[in-house]
Amino acid sequence: MTALQIALLCSILVSLAAFGLSALFFVWVKKRPSQNETIEKISKLIANGAKTFLKKEYTVLAIFAAVAAIVILLFLPKPIWQENPLGNVFMTLSYLCGTVFSAIAGKIGIMIATIANKKTAEAAKTSTAKAFMTGYRGGAVMGMAVVGASLIGVSAIFWIFSDASMLLGFSFGASSLALFAKAGGGIFTKTADISADLVGKVELGLPEDDPRNPAVIADNVGDNVGDVAGMGADLFDSNVASLAAALVISSSIDNTAGTLFTPVVFVYALVGLLASIIGVAFNRMGKKGNPTNALNFSTYVTMALFASLTAVATAAFFNSEIYWRVYGAAVIGLAVGAVIGIATDYFTDDRRRPVKKVASASGKGPAFTVLSGISYSFYSTLPAMAGIAVSALASYKLCEPIANAIGLSPVDLGMLGIAIAAVGMLSVVGMIVSNDAYGPIVDNARGLAEMGGLGDEVIARTDMLDSAGNTVKAITKGFSIGAAGLTVIALLGAFRTEVNEAALSMGLGLNYLSGFDVLDPVVFFGILVGGAVPAVFSAMLMLGVDKNARRMVDEIHRQFKEIKGLKEGKEGVMPQYDKCISIATAGSIKELIPAGLMTIVMTLAVGFIGGVKAVGGFLLGNIVTGLLLALFMSNAGGLWDNSKKYIESGFEGGKGSRAHKSAVVGDTVGDPFKDTAGPSINTQITVVSLIASLTSTLFLSFSVFA
Amino acid sequence: MTALQIALLCSILVSLAAFGLSALFFVWVKKRPSQNETIEKISKLIANGAKTFLKKEYTVLAIFAAVAAIVILLFLPKPIWQENPLGNVFMTLSYLCGTVFSAIAGKIGIMIATIANKKTAEAAKTSTAKAFMTGYRGGAVMGMAVVGASLIGVSAIFWIFSDASMLLGFSFGASSLALFAKAGGGIFTKTADISADLVGKVELGLPEDDPRNPAVIADNVGDNVGDVAGMGADLFDSNVASLAAALVISSSIDNTAGTLFTPVVFVYALVGLLASIIGVAFNRMGKKGNPTNALNFSTYVTMALFASLTAVATAAFFNSEIYWRVYGAAVIGLAVGAVIGIATDYFTDDRRRPVKKVASASGKGPAFTVLSGISYSFYSTLPAMAGIAVSALASYKLCEPIANAIGLSPVDLGMLGIAIAAVGMLSVVGMIVSNDAYGPIVDNARGLAEMGGLGDEVIARTDMLDSAGNTVKAITKGFSIGAAGLTVIALLGAFRTEVNEAALSMGLGLNYLSGFDVLDPVVFFGILVGGAVPAVFSAMLMLGVDKNARRMVDEIHRQFKEIKGLKEGKEGVMPQYDKCISIATAGSIKELIPAGLMTIVMTLAVGFIGGVKAVGGFLLGNIVTGLLLALFMSNAGGLWDNSKKYIESGFEGGKGSRAHKSAVVGDTVGDPFKDTAGPSINTQITVVSLIASLTSTLFLSFSVFA
Repeated sequence: MTALQIALLCSILVSLAAFGLSALFFVWVKKRPSQNETIEKISKLIANGAKTFLKKEYTVLAIFAAVAAIVILLFLPKPIWQENPLGNVFMTLSYLCGTVFSAIAGKIGIMIATIANKKTAEAAKTSTAKAFMTGYRGGAVMGMAVVGASLIGVSAIFWIFSDASMLLGFSFGASSLALFAKAGGGIFTKTADISADLVGKVELGLPEDDPRNPAVIADNVGDNVGDVAGMGADLFDSNVASLAAALVISSSIDNTAGTLFTPVVFVYALVGLLASIIGVAFNRMGKKGNPTNALNFSTYVTMALFASLTAVATAAFFNSEIYWRVYGAAVIGLAVGAVIGIATDYFTDDRRRPVKKVASASGKGPAFTVLSGISYSFYSTLPAMAGIAVSALASYKLCEPIANAIGLSPVDLGMLGIAIAAVGMLSVVGMIVSNDAYGPIVDNARGLAEMGGLGDEVIARTDMLDSAGNTVKAITKGFSIGAAGLTVIALLGAFRTEVNEAALSMGLGLNYLSGFDVLDPVVFFGILVGGAVPAVFSAMLMLGVDKNARRMVDEIHRQFKEIKGLKEGKEGVMPQYDKCISIATAGSIKELIPAGLMTIVMTLAVGFIGGVKAVGGFLLGNIVTGLLLALFMSNAGGLWDNSKKYIESGFEGGKGSRAHKSAVVGDTVGDPFKDTAGPSINTQITVVSLIASLTSTLFLSFSVFA
Repeated sequence: MTALQIALLCSILVSLAAFGLSALFFVWVKKRPSQNETIEKISKLIANGAKTFLKKEYTVLAIFAAVAAIVILLFLPKPIWQENPLGNVFMTLSYLCGTVFSAIAGKIGIMIATIANKKTAEAAKTSTAKAFMTGYRGGAVMGMAVVGASLIGVSAIFWIFSDASMLLGFSFGASSLALFAKAGGGIFTKTADISADLVGKVELGLPEDDPRNPAVIADNVGDNVGDVAGMGADLFDSNVASLAAALVISSSIDNTAGTLFTPVVFVYALVGLLASIIGVAFNRMGKKGNPTNALNFSTYVTMALFASLTAVATAAFFNSEIYWRVYGAAVIGLAVGAVIGIATDYFTDDRRRPVKKVASASGKGPAFTVLSGISYSFYSTLPAMAGIAVSALASYKLCEPIANAIGLSPVDLGMLGIAIAAVGMLSVVGMIVSNDAYGPIVDNARGLAEMGGLGDEVIARTDMLDSAGNTVKAITKGFSIGAAGLTVIALLGAFRTEVNEAALSMGLGLNYLSGFDVLDPVVFFGILVGGAVPAVFSAMLMLGVDKNARRMVDEIHRQFKEIKGLKEGKEGVMPQYDKCISIATAGSIKELIPAGLMTIVMTLAVGFIGGVKAVGGFLLGNIVTGLLLALFMSNAGGLWDNSKKYIESGFEGGKGSRAHKSAVVGDTVGDPFKDTAGPSINTQITVVSLIASLTSTLFLSFSVFA
């Protein structure tokens, strides 16, 4: 067996171990007791609602994927009539695998989340520690499944087709689904949230989660489809994209210089997953423990394990300077991920200045909540962007000198360094997804504890778990944004590699495209147009929420008017929850399709006007403003959310004060920022990058300025 | 006399003609009658307040300029001990000229604005047409002075020193002053506006412009120092920067290929000014005319004059293909400027969908005003950015083939095309400044008419003039944003030219820097860091307004508490207006200095870390996110302002409705967006570009990665 085959085999084995742990925890969570009838009833409604949404969404996605598959079959990697059609068949299969794997990961996430929430609520009756373990292991089911699926998918496709380009197809499948899951879920969840609040709280004065409100179940479903399924699809996509980018670059080097780096990439990925498995499996919270510390501790353990195990592997199997340089790049990625996370935390943590300042500004009125929140979030973009910039520069410079040793292009090796830094940053992704999925589970558990009347002590316990989830989320979010930034840079490098390989096979000569010079007007044209796309994409999603919420508000009004006794809470009278769920479902899909198509059409238009160089510029413009807006919107949402909670905990006049009313306005603005637009931008950039790489041959063949 | 000398002479003559028209109109406006005592008194207070501000601001700026002048003398263009020190002396003189010219232009603007406003109010007693002419000619005094000063300054410095690099010093003087004038004025005006409203309207229920409010005069002063002086300094700076960029590139070409293009640049500039003079001088509004039409008509006449006169000049003096290509670039600039203006207008005009949609969303609460406003403003960035992208691409491609005819680098000629397009777009700048200065004059006139009790009919007339000012502003703003975009692209090209000339003289060889490849990690590092700077800069200015407003609110509270009889409006009791003015003045200067220094320090830090390539990337990142944020914030501010006015005119429930209250929140958020941060970003980018060009030698000599 070659080194590569051993690495592939080990990757598949570790992935299977992740699946094993996921299954074990699934059974463990399922076995936890749950007896409360109200909770059972509500939780069933939520589970059914989530199923309805997923079914509808996956139906539409199946149509989309079928159309995309036909287009891929006909045109990618090259028009089917030009060369061996088997390549097109393989690419289509890879694409379909990507969509199916992503869909399954989302489905598993929803399944476990809608079970774990009630079990967590029930466990909170006994102790915080028990509830923590239930919520945590529920999240880990999703985490292990997502990361296992991404690594096994990448390894299998690479092994079967022996062609890294096929991974771009797999990654495109994952990211096109993630775009719909994240953006669609984001529109769904905010539609339901806003409509339920507008009619329930504002117009009728009903409390949060009142069962008379026809939108209340849709609201709870939204938490699951947006936060759990959407987030899972998103990180599945990021992880696959970072591996694909690294492998496209490493195989291109290996094809010329002999197998050198591809096995290393797999080793990093599998060791990262192994470290996550250990960190997740052995995570415990003592009886007197604190959930935040438990979550953070396991994250740091995983990071330390990754850094030391990869060092051991390097010393044992790859003990030469070139590999230690690659190791350095991975560690840089890991470290900078942590730094970005800590910086992000500063801007959204209620013990820090920004949250306090926004809360204090709120006393003067909502305009000041909005203005100060926007200002601090603008600030917050600098540490993250500078962190990504520094890690890209450092990992590039670290790996560039390898070129001398193996006689290849320094650009390729520098880009490999960046890609490896992204892989290093995402090495702990199993831990990240587990922690991220823990959040909505305990959040839902809190709601169920309240609706099921489990009493104040239980609610206080779930509150503690919930707040730990929010704190930890800020740090894990740092990793995912940072990694997305590095991955798209690596994808820009991969795009160049793909273009040059395509150009070579078209007889356009070696190293057809040396780079993208910003003074080249075609590149510049692409940069400016690409720079506007994330803003337009965000606007379309946010206006989509607005339109959809209007439809739902009409439906809620209709039900209160037509269903007699509903408003009064007459025994046995129930609202038609499913109607609201179908409206949110249909609307979210209807509203996200134009946004998705816009990004695809813009990429193709720029490509056919300016050719591959314009597309490179377009990607860059997308990356720069996309990172800026994603950071701005995600952090603003978190900042406003926590300022509201800070005031509610008794500061600046507490609940009901002028400051609180202003903070509620800020929170409402922040909701679609942080749950709809902000986190969808990463996926939008990845989709654009992959389309660009996949269609490079087309733009080389036809374009106005090529 | 050479062709160049004739062009320079004509430029100076036309500039003198502009000064003549400016003086003529000044005398004309001053001669208009004004008798109302109350108006005289208030207007004197405003004029004195504005003087106080300017005096304080210019004192601080003089210190800043002196320090900068010493640094320039020691280090620029090269360390004084390295070569002929005369170059450093010339550069210092050019820099000082730039600051002085800019300061004088601002001073003239304030002088005429504080006279023209009362004369316009008085003229409105007779007829709309008379009032229009007074306001318009008042604005034209400023317009002609600004453009005359920029052309005569550029021509004289170029003639005296015969070195285009000196123009960068002149331009840097203009832009460093503009940064302070625009950002400082922006902080001043919003500080006063917000504090006056918070205490006056919200706490005490006083009407707008109530003389008991200690901040009321500061508020009116703010309109003048922010809108008139700041805007004048801004457009002076843009115009000088566009000419400097074009001339640096053209002289670099001419130095190699013989005098070809430098005279042409001057011809375009002087014909543009001539066209503006004619358009301004002959503008009339008939008795039954409409002010919007009068303003638009003169703008279109100026555009047509420019296009036809430059065609005539080209046919007469430069009749060969290479010059017709240059002519094409100028016309592209002009046309795209108009297109961007029309697109901008769409998003802020109350007869269009966005304003109506935001007004209708306001019925649901302030969060929806903010969300829908942000969404539509995100949309609004696309047409402008795509417009700049297309005009840059088209003008580059049009001029690139000239390289074949004269045997020079296609990049240089393409960049010349972009620079010429910027000059073409700014050809009507005389008209733009006149129209822009007209706005605050008639706005102030409206306030004076109200305070002086001139009656409803007069107020209605000034309202009509005011609304025309707002409509026209959207279109002229299109020109200035578009031109700033093209100018900074050209400055990026000029930066490369400067680096290469410096490198050549340092013995680093010909064409040391061919471009900026985005896959070069140093460039990429610069791009990401540069991309965050406009966001941080905006945040600093907006938080500066907030801090400063707190100080002023305290002062207003103190006065109401300590001055007996003030609140009750006792006869003879006056607030201490000057205290509020000094607080706004001192605070605005205090708050803007860190923002200004941050941009300068970041540029130097990136340069010393990554060298000239990183600085190129830094500029690009600045341009992309800077344009995006400037468009977003300016348009959002306009959109919210007009939505509020739309509701006030009776729609969506009219004044006092829930929608109106929400719209007021939107308008308050929009105020620092459109009057403080948004319009300062252009200047910030220009300053960074010029610092980069000026310091290129330093980064070539010392930098970590060079």
